[in-house]
Amino acid sequence: MTRRFRPFVILAMSLGCVSAPARIEQSASQPWRGQGVVHLDKSPYAKLRSVPIRAVRMQDGFWGRRRKVTIEKSIPSIRALIEEHGYADNFRRLSKSKKVERKGPVFADTDPYKWIEAVGVFLQSGDQPQLRQWAEEWIDEIVAIQEPGGYLNTNFVGEKASQRLIPETMEWGHELYSLGHMLQAAIAYYRATGNRKLLDAGIKFADYLARDFGPDKKPLLAGHPEVEMALVELYRTTGERRYLELAGYLLNGDKRLDRPAHRIVYTFSGTPFTARTRLQGHAVRAMYACSGATDYYLETGDRQYWGTLERLWQDMLNGKMYVTGGLGSRWDGESFGASYELPNSRAYAETCAAIGSFMWNWRMLAATGDARFTDVMERALYNAINVGMSLDGTLYCYANPLESSGKSDPNWHSKDGTVRNPWYDVLCCPPNIQRTLGALPGYLYSTSKDGIYAHFFESSDLDWRLEDGTGLKITQKTGYPWEGNVDFTLNPERPGEFTLYLRIPGWAAGAKVSANGQAVNGAVEPGKYLALRRRWQAGDRVRLELDMTPQLVASHPLVLENAGRVAVQRGPLVYCLERTDQPGVRSLQDVALAPGGGPGKEFRTEFRAGLLGGVTVLKHRGTVKEGALSDQPLYRRVLTGGGAEAGTRHSSRPAELTFIPYYAWANREPSPMRVWIPYDTGR
Amino acid sequence: MTRRFRPFVILAMSLGCVSAPARIEQSASQPWRGQGVVHLDKSPYAKLRSVPIRAVRMQDGFWGRRRKVTIEKSIPSIRALIEEHGYADNFRRLSKSKKVERKGPVFADTDPYKWIEAVGVFLQSGDQPQLRQWAEEWIDEIVAIQEPGGYLNTNFVGEKASQRLIPETMEWGHELYSLGHMLQAAIAYYRATGNRKLLDAGIKFADYLARDFGPDKKPLLAGHPEVEMALVELYRTTGERRYLELAGYLLNGDKRLDRPAHRIVYTFSGTPFTARTRLQGHAVRAMYACSGATDYYLETGDRQYWGTLERLWQDMLNGKMYVTGGLGSRWDGESFGASYELPNSRAYAETCAAIGSFMWNWRMLAATGDARFTDVMERALYNAINVGMSLDGTLYCYANPLESSGKSDPNWHSKDGTVRNPWYDVLCCPPNIQRTLGALPGYLYSTSKDGIYAHFFESSDLDWRLEDGTGLKITQKTGYPWEGNVDFTLNPERPGEFTLYLRIPGWAAGAKVSANGQAVNGAVEPGKYLALRRRWQAGDRVRLELDMTPQLVASHPLVLENAGRVAVQRGPLVYCLERTDQPGVRSLQDVALAPGGGPGKEFRTEFRAGLLGGVTVLKHRGTVKEGALSDQPLYRRVLTGGGAEAGTRHSSRPAELTFIPYYAWANREPSPMRVWIPYDTGR
Repeated sequence: MTRRFRPFVILAMSLGCVSAPARIEQSASQPWRGQGVVHLDKSPYAKLRSVPIRAVRMQDGFWGRRRKVTIEKSIPSIRALIEEHGYADNFRRLSKSKKVERKGPVFADTDPYKWIEAVGVFLQSGDQPQLRQWAEEWIDEIVAIQEPGGYLNTNFVGEKASQRLIPETMEWGHELYSLGHMLQAAIAYYRATGNRKLLDAGIKFADYLARDFGPDKKPLLAGHPEVEMALVELYRTTGERRYLELAGYLLNGDKRLDRPAHRIVYTFSGTPFTARTRLQGHAVRAMYACSGATDYYLETGDRQYWGTLERLWQDMLNGKMYVTGGLGSRWDGESFGASYELPNSRAYAETCAAIGSFMWNWRMLAATGDARFTDVMERALYNAINVGMSLDGTLYCYANPLESSGKSDPNWHSKDGTVRNPWYDVLCCPPNIQRTLGALPGYLYSTSKDGIYAHFFESSDLDWRLEDGTGLKITQKTGYPWEGNVDFTLNPERPGEFTLYLRIPGWAAGAKVSANGQAVNGAVEPGKYLALRRRWQAGDRVRLELDMTPQLVASHPLVLENAGRVAVQRGPLVYCLERTDQPGVRSLQDVALAPGGGPGKEFRTEFRAGLLGGVTVLKHRGTVKEGALSDQPLYRRVLTGGGAEAGTRHSSRPAELTFIPYYAWANREPSPMRVWIPYDTGR
Repeated sequence: MTRRFRPFVILAMSLGCVSAPARIEQSASQPWRGQGVVHLDKSPYAKLRSVPIRAVRMQDGFWGRRRKVTIEKSIPSIRALIEEHGYADNFRRLSKSKKVERKGPVFADTDPYKWIEAVGVFLQSGDQPQLRQWAEEWIDEIVAIQEPGGYLNTNFVGEKASQRLIPETMEWGHELYSLGHMLQAAIAYYRATGNRKLLDAGIKFADYLARDFGPDKKPLLAGHPEVEMALVELYRTTGERRYLELAGYLLNGDKRLDRPAHRIVYTFSGTPFTARTRLQGHAVRAMYACSGATDYYLETGDRQYWGTLERLWQDMLNGKMYVTGGLGSRWDGESFGASYELPNSRAYAETCAAIGSFMWNWRMLAATGDARFTDVMERALYNAINVGMSLDGTLYCYANPLESSGKSDPNWHSKDGTVRNPWYDVLCCPPNIQRTLGALPGYLYSTSKDGIYAHFFESSDLDWRLEDGTGLKITQKTGYPWEGNVDFTLNPERPGEFTLYLRIPGWAAGAKVSANGQAVNGAVEPGKYLALRRRWQAGDRVRLELDMTPQLVASHPLVLENAGRVAVQRGPLVYCLERTDQPGVRSLQDVALAPGGGPGKEFRTEFRAGLLGGVTVLKHRGTVKEGALSDQPLYRRVLTGGGAEAGTRHSSRPAELTFIPYYAWANREPSPMRVWIPYDTGR
């Protein structure tokens, strides 16, 4: 927190320095330069097309600063730890350059892969010679162990080679999961640099699969979905349809590989995707499967897929998503629970599951242009994802509870129950956050046939083009999420008519929009894109004004733990109480919110530049119970027709409470935390 | 349910037909005849001594009928299934009488052991030739594979023999756990028949351990506690102190076997028992460890042990016990949660953990004569244990939630989520219930220096003696738990002064006691033993009148899921709603209790002989919400200073609700169930 960061240099992209026609020529000769996080330019069922990461330069805003920490601290430290734990040596072991034991879980290869992907997406924002050098060293070491037939995996070698891609192994062996991450890393790195070394290795492995496995060949099962979206992206990158077909085959499952129902549920693979009716089983697997299935839909337009995706999405939204955007209620199986099963201190809400939701909703958004998907992305990004990495970029959460004593029970990811750790033997989350934050510039905008979509609010400069080829620059200036005003300046290459689709967040009742100082007529509807169609010309300004009054949020009555409780949200940020900030309070369990004088009056906002990297805190005059709750018995008889038995009432005194953003908790000394606070809703 | 049972013949015990002095002589020559479930006659720190199972004959009351189903249906069917699944063949495989693969988990040997123990305790109530023959066939086959050195285990043989009792194996290998169950079976069988065959084998194994392992020898770890209480019981049975010492060594842990903290927590073994401060980790392991530690205390009087036991008990009672007496809040790790972490539909509450609590509290009771322990036993017995076996004795629960949709998600014990199953690959629970119900007669009474304790209420005939040798018969007549009157008739061999300690259950406010028709003066205090000291003579009568008015029970405010909810209890029975019994109700989630006109007026009781084997149902005029809860959003903004946003209120209509005892749920077609029901407590 108190360390100084080295100056962060974002190199000017060559892309931003040439005129539009030249850019398009260059793009044709270097197709990788124009490809977004998900490359949808030729996807027949995509309504929106991605904007390349390199086309958006983030300024020193909320995410700009998180990205800076990521590239300066997180990426180098995770590389060092991967080395220290021997996960990179697993490759050197096979190339005989090091004589060591294999280390880590069967899927340990994915950690270098995801790290390379993170570097790949960051390099799309400008060169980083040291990172590039490190990545290419690893890439060289990885491709060096590829077998002539294309197979590449550090686990299923030697005496375990006989277990490769056989029915008994596929369910848990993570071979295709590993390939999926290898392909995603390869594609990101290719899109950053044009370097095809890892990509060609990935293609060779994928070609081996496409040749030997499939409906009339050997059967294949994903076990842990991930490769599906990677294969579709490989199809988009290469144009080779066999990868799309292989993804479809995996999503459909192969009846020859029959398995017990509970394992089909858990792994979210091996039965036709379109036979699923609800989200259950392992949350990350489910999100990755949904992402891959949406990719498949975007290419094929298969309506059965769309029906299933919509149904599963409703299942998530209506009963299985934490207010933070986190997913996965259960520690056992790292899995979804039943609808409304959303425990707080026992929330699993793995960081990777929220990232999976972010990826899935991005694809659903691309298919529809519907802002309900962007709302879910924003909720996950600012809360359930952002909480996953410490403010200083060196510690990570695996599970993300909404209530904590400051320490969890010892568990398999954190042997002493520490919430944030520098390393996990199952390292999926840290590089997953890195790649997500690295790719963020590519998520701010999309283009459509008739214009451009502005999804997220961040001080930044877009330099791209409309789909008709007209160059377009857009500057965003905003203090979001601390402040509610967002100023857009549009600079089209030449004046022309198109639509700016401006997202009005679902939480933003009362939002106002003006263009060139004139209020926009018509309904500005929360949870929709406001379509501003006009003849735009250089210097046109659009201002979005969001009402940042803190809001109280209640849960569905069947979320039992939240009965009588509310969460506090301001803008996209969910807030929490950390006991550290409540000096007179013995236990957060004694605290309640007190009814205020109406919206806007219960909270006082205060930006504190020196706190937690700079946050807006919320002050509220609530109450604290007097007397110890622990004196009460676990069960007591209730006498009807009168009150409860004696000894169960407590008097309360007023107390000033200070809320901090949820993402920033557990960045000081260990402290109890809670999101859902008792409140008399007046019902 | 509708099947006819074969007539159940309880043979008159020879013990009941001879005079007291002769009985004592016989007891000296056949010491096994006088030994109770836990043989405390020489335990210096036991305030109470057990009464042999054979000294109490149960009539056709509540438990008498459950025992009848157990011996006629459950015990034969579980034997057949153990055979069918090859767990008995594991022994034959080693004696070369059958050429088969080893089957089942590493601890599969314990299933035949526990089954033999169940038969052993039942045989103490009278001979059952078929069961005796089956048991002795298995015993012969078990002892046949014992190695000359004493080791006996079907898993760690052949190439796995090198893994025996080494540090790497002991934590998960369940070798001592298996020995523990073998010893308990051997002792029960010996106490039934005097047959020492299995006992001698167990002694040989225990002698090998006592000789080769210990502080100055090889280190030993329980991994799954169980052997501790078995070793203390072996000490009590043989008088050989080395078994007590070995138990103490295991309870204290061996520093040479250092392990990560989370595994020490989980296994509840390997660190000094007296260093524990709370119940955490695997619930069954914890309960078995506490049982063994109490056994150790009863022999040694070690005050540090007592301090830890009392502290752990308070930890259980004040925050970790379900209202059913169930223990273990978490599926992952089958473990305790934090205090007040008591989810309902996600309760694990393994049947074995409730049985472990029953065993532990029996030992705590023996040490103190304190009725708070009996209260916990009764709560567990009538609810969390009894629910574990279906009414027809052929289906079992592993987990025992307090709320259910009628089916759980597929899980590792129930692949399709069925609540009650005839078989589990991890079979611990079914024979555990059998041995508990088999031993029940031995739990009704204890003796003390100055008299006799009556713990539980069941129509039955005691034929035993006071500690001074005076013969004493006591008859209980009662319709408990359906009716609240219990009539005791005392028949001492000769008139004499002693104390009858009559338990007044903790729930029984307003209980009345009379002796020979005269009301007993002084306070009859719930949760205490009422000491009736007088000169008793043949034919003396004591009547206990318990107020069976249904009670509403509320939880501590930190049990978040139960906020605003109550459970219904009548006598020792916790009740529940099963949707089957609520014809007009679409979902139990729509149902609430309505405030009544004071205690005794909200419920109408109705005994239904034809329902669920004969149960008293409770009728209540509650309310049902109209409109679908599922239409409400998962999260909604709450506007302060006014009500919630529109669309969140529901009108309700009155509805007659029918409650059944919790233990009887899931004995008809699958149906949603819940224990905790919303209720306006008027607070």
